[in-house]
Amino acid sequence: QIDARRLWDSLMDTARIGGTPKGGISRLTLTEADRQVRDWLKTECERLGCTVTVDEVGNMFAVRPGRRSDLPPIAIGSHLDTQPTGGKFDGVLGVLGGLEILRTLQDSGYETNAPLMLVNWTNEEGSRFAPAMLGSGVYAGVFDRAYADSREDRQGVTFGEAVEAIGYRGEAKAGSVQFGAMFELHIEQGPILEQEEMSIGIVEGVQGMRWYEISVTGREAHTGSTPMPMRRDALVGAARLIDRVEAIALEHAPSAVGSVGLIEAQPNSRNVVPGRVFFTVDFRHPDDAALDVMEQKLQAAVEETARKTNLAVELKTVWESPAVRFDADCLASVRRSAEAAGYPARPMISGAGHDAAYVARVAPTAMIFVPCAGGLSHNEEESTSFEECAAGAQVLLGAVLDYDGR
Amino acid sequence: QIDARRLWDSLMDTARIGGTPKGGISRLTLTEADRQVRDWLKTECERLGCTVTVDEVGNMFAVRPGRRSDLPPIAIGSHLDTQPTGGKFDGVLGVLGGLEILRTLQDSGYETNAPLMLVNWTNEEGSRFAPAMLGSGVYAGVFDRAYADSREDRQGVTFGEAVEAIGYRGEAKAGSVQFGAMFELHIEQGPILEQEEMSIGIVEGVQGMRWYEISVTGREAHTGSTPMPMRRDALVGAARLIDRVEAIALEHAPSAVGSVGLIEAQPNSRNVVPGRVFFTVDFRHPDDAALDVMEQKLQAAVEETARKTNLAVELKTVWESPAVRFDADCLASVRRSAEAAGYPARPMISGAGHDAAYVARVAPTAMIFVPCAGGLSHNEEESTSFEECAAGAQVLLGAVLDYDGR
Ligand SMILES: NC(=O)NCCC(=O)O
Ligand SMILES: NC(=O)NCCC(=O)O
Repeated sequence: QIDARRLWDSLMDTARIGGTPKGGISRLTLTEADRQVRDWLKTECERLGCTVTVDEVGNMFAVRPGRRSDLPPIAIGSHLDTQPTGGKFDGVLGVLGGLEILRTLQDSGYETNAPLMLVNWTNEEGSRFAPAMLGSGVYAGVFDRAYADSREDRQGVTFGEAVEAIGYRGEAKAGSVQFGAMFELHIEQGPILEQEEMSIGIVEGVQGMRWYEISVTGREAHTGSTPMPMRRDALVGAARLIDRVEAIALEHAPSAVGSVGLIEAQPNSRNVVPGRVFFTVDFRHPDDAALDVMEQKLQAAVEETARKTNLAVELKTVWESPAVRFDADCLASVRRSAEAAGYPARPMISGAGHDAAYVARVAPTAMIFVPCAGGLSHNEEESTSFEECAAGAQVLLGAVLDYDGR
Repeated sequence: QIDARRLWDSLMDTARIGGTPKGGISRLTLTEADRQVRDWLKTECERLGCTVTVDEVGNMFAVRPGRRSDLPPIAIGSHLDTQPTGGKFDGVLGVLGGLEILRTLQDSGYETNAPLMLVNWTNEEGSRFAPAMLGSGVYAGVFDRAYADSREDRQGVTFGEAVEAIGYRGEAKAGSVQFGAMFELHIEQGPILEQEEMSIGIVEGVQGMRWYEISVTGREAHTGSTPMPMRRDALVGAARLIDRVEAIALEHAPSAVGSVGLIEAQPNSRNVVPGRVFFTVDFRHPDDAALDVMEQKLQAAVEETARKTNLAVELKTVWESPAVRFDADCLASVRRSAEAAGYPARPMISGAGHDAAYVARVAPTAMIFVPCAGGLSHNEEESTSFEECAAGAQVLLGAVLDYDGR
């Protein structure tokens, strides 16, 4: 039985690291706030007698020995980084829920067969450095270290510089710290569990996602003295494409989503016709074939804009993460654990990306969802209740012990 | 006869203050670069025996005495601030052209009847602090000092803080440094003179302009797990309005222009549905009645967006500068000067705003335009030739002496 109060206190206490006035967290990956929460986690794990290893991309692995050292560890992992205006639960619940399990077992003197391992993955959010799930992606061999190191934030700082600046470039080669399976507890970030009054989501997979970057180049000119027909207004071109991104998603309703989250105009001055606009596109769909069609439509829209206007438009794919199915055995452990604890549960597909999606390529993996109010996430108002967090951590504990028992 | 080489050298030398790799100038008002060029101007004017006065909003006035101290000075004024990626001539030509005239008269020992006054107006561009022409506007009583002081840049620094930070808060009350007339030399910033192979524009007026700020508020949410119908995407709303701004301008072709120059999205993260977008609108037309109609259409578009979506949209008018007609006597001096120098000239209306537009409210005023390549301005590639700059300064000298002779 996990200690619900201790879990909640850890969530609320660490939420101060990068805490925002509106009650959220602003803890972009590899910033000073991220360093502080990593240091805190390391101390807490070592206090429990765990050995903490850091790999070359900053992923943290804390191991609690089991009865049998010949078995590979069972991992529990998620992330402590957040969006610039993120909530208190996205990612954090999975790591602190795992920590609560280590504490519970320690307190009760429970010895698992396999060692247990708590993992904090680097740059899950992908907000500072695209793509998302970069640390788990390097771990799983989807990206190599050089690629990760080369990723730049919007200020031109590289991932490699940032991981070194906060002192979290570990010695271990990525992928060398192995485990036998991984469970990830996370908030749903969508509306389904709440609408159906379910406590637990048994997450069978993750939908496919693709990220693009579009640069529109026109010409800077005076807004007052440049006649309309002479203009090459990059923002007017970008606006049409933003509209089109939404339209493409709606054409593939109800499963598709499409979004432009980031936009930057240059020189961004009230009386200068924008000469250059950079923006990002995020497409998702549970079916990779549908994503192919959406991508073709985006390409066509880009070509049409370039053809019909005097703007240059460049489209770059920066990330493709295919749809993922989780492991049947791990899922069975989650199902049994939810049943045993008496929580209403339903199978579902994740709309958001998660480290588990990449880990699933190299180890049996499954996820557990708990609801969040209004399905709201990536928002400082993100909210999951005391009871919901406790239920998630309890089902996580049960799933891990069930898996360990087989 | 002005010294064309000396004028050109001053233009090129001072272009290094805030100079950009692409050959433009980045010298936003009241920055360190602006301080440097102001200090340089002060030194050069004092070297010519002028007395330099600075007023409470940083406008600089250098006076060269005339034969008769009972006559009010004839002013020559423009601005030394630039856009973030501005050219080498916008504003600068008017001030350095005026300086060249003071130098020419000094060299030849020419004594005017009235004193001459060179003016460098603060924050003409309006890029760092909206609205444009703020220094001349306070001078002319359009705005008061408290209003100017309260204007904030996008980082939240106020005009008042900035003018003090660079040491250009002068003692003189705005408007207390008086003159009898003003001439402003400027590049056209549009295509007409070049297309018609004219050297000189006799600028009879300035079109009306209005600046607006629009805030669209939706709700930050996860791009992957938030179904399309549940979204309140502020950027999708903004994109429709940006499209509409262009459409409104085209509905009032060929005289109207409409632009969105600045846009900021929050939190501006690839996988967050934008919760808030701020952008600016710039409408211009030679006829204020047409601007009224354009404004009504913008208001209607804002209301429609708010009604048809679940977004909150706020429209704020931040600036209204009505169409301006310049003084007949001053214009006659310009016309005679251009004729005497043998330059092909034509009357025209300015598409851009200028300090002369506000000065015209309190003193007889006129402007002289010279061409710029391709009509391009507010662009680092802005280009006016050695000969064109010289012609403008020569006509400016002739106009001032003609006016002084009457
Ligand atoms: N869970 C989560 O918010 N992950 C961030 C990556 C993404 O799905 O955009
Ligand atoms: N001349 C000039 O570029 N002025 C800036 C104010 C404006 O017209 O936007």
